[in-house]
Amino acid sequence: MLSNKDMKRYNKKNDYSYTFGAFPTYELLENRPENVEKILIHSTASKEIYDKIKLLCDKNDIPLVINDKLLEKLREKDSCIVVGVFHKFQCEMEKGENHVVLVNPSDTGNMGTIIRTCIGFGIRNLAIIEPAVDIFNPKVIRASMGSLFHLNYKYFSSFEEYATVYGADRCMYPFMLKGAKKLGAFPLDRDCAFSLIFGNEATGLDDSFLKVGQSLRISHSDAIDSLNLSLAAGIAIYEFTKNYF
Amino acid sequence: MLSNKDMKRYNKKNDYSYTFGAFPTYELLENRPENVEKILIHSTASKEIYDKIKLLCDKNDIPLVINDKLLEKLREKDSCIVVGVFHKFQCEMEKGENHVVLVNPSDTGNMGTIIRTCIGFGIRNLAIIEPAVDIFNPKVIRASMGSLFHLNYKYFSSFEEYATVYGADRCMYPFMLKGAKKLGAFPLDRDCAFSLIFGNEATGLDDSFLKVGQSLRISHSDAIDSLNLSLAAGIAIYEFTKNYF
Repeated sequence: MLSNKDMKRYNKKNDYSYTFGAFPTYELLENRPENVEKILIHSTASKEIYDKIKLLCDKNDIPLVINDKLLEKLREKDSCIVVGVFHKFQCEMEKGENHVVLVNPSDTGNMGTIIRTCIGFGIRNLAIIEPAVDIFNPKVIRASMGSLFHLNYKYFSSFEEYATVYGADRCMYPFMLKGAKKLGAFPLDRDCAFSLIFGNEATGLDDSFLKVGQSLRISHSDAIDSLNLSLAAGIAIYEFTKNYF
Repeated sequence: MLSNKDMKRYNKKNDYSYTFGAFPTYELLENRPENVEKILIHSTASKEIYDKIKLLCDKNDIPLVINDKLLEKLREKDSCIVVGVFHKFQCEMEKGENHVVLVNPSDTGNMGTIIRTCIGFGIRNLAIIEPAVDIFNPKVIRASMGSLFHLNYKYFSSFEEYATVYGADRCMYPFMLKGAKKLGAFPLDRDCAFSLIFGNEATGLDDSFLKVGQSLRISHSDAIDSLNLSLAAGIAIYEFTKNYF
């Protein structure tokens, strides 16, 4: 049991993290109640929010605590009136399902936005190749709008490690400015689970990925150097899944 | 002429703004040299960056100033070693061209990312319906990676004002969760310039837009409430322009 005085602002080294705001906290309570330590709510929260949080807490025997001082210490924005305190969790990825693979992602906002898009388009498995941003950073959770709690994720020390464990019976699609084929201009193999692979924000994927599966590019004008990472991933995920929704 | 001591951190009320970082400053110098007041460069800048900036400044008779103290006062991140100082500019939008219309956008990062995607996919005209974020906020410029300097933009006090001036001979596509047709599942009118219309991050477009042109939705799973605004706009822009690139 984590005491109130032990709780500090988020630190990667701790085994617990926070949801900030009502919406991500609902997602936490609905999808990962077994990981929740407690919920903090501010005395100024509306009755509507209080009642909804209270119901979810009671259902799962989770303590709901009104403690303005502690909440104000932990939160990152003054407008935040609900904080979920939860234990970080490990996942197993599903072998037969579609994956997104992020190689060395460095931006918390991009990672959260990509998770939200994955969940929105039915991809529930995310592989992350280190070095990489911390998936439990509250900024990731916030950008994901709590969709992180629908996701199976796993960190790997190299792409080769991922490919060894999960690469069999799967179509790999690295996205690169030099990609051999244009996204949308070739037929997808509908019988094969796919992995959509994206590189770091600044450097992209290195040339070794030209030999991995079928490399793809998202063609654009030469007025920009590249698309934003979360945009490129979102467009690719949309194109691969649009017939399912 | 703006004196060094008059220069303050960015303020919406001033008639000048800043590019932070080498890349957006190259874009400024290459595309809007007539608006540049001066360039500040840090004494620690690499020779490569200094030489490139110097060449662009000399070509356009723009003062290049080494002033670490001033630059450190203005910049928002310690890693920034180049600051462009430029006068805000007004634009006219092109009547016969494709437009993106943002109704009440409230997030600087989203606006910048959407501008980058627009320019990447050949849309050079952006209408912004007030109240809205300030397009010259340096955070917008940074998220746009300087592609703002390729753009024609215009603010309007209402959507009706935009439609009155620019609505003739144009296909309007408001994007809404309740959109009547699914993006990608209906044939686009290739002979008609289009306007892709997106609402505010939190509230979307109100129901009155169901009567504007052809409302569209980007179908996704019910595990998320909605896509991130810049993702929704990026996917829509990609789908409407993918045959051109």
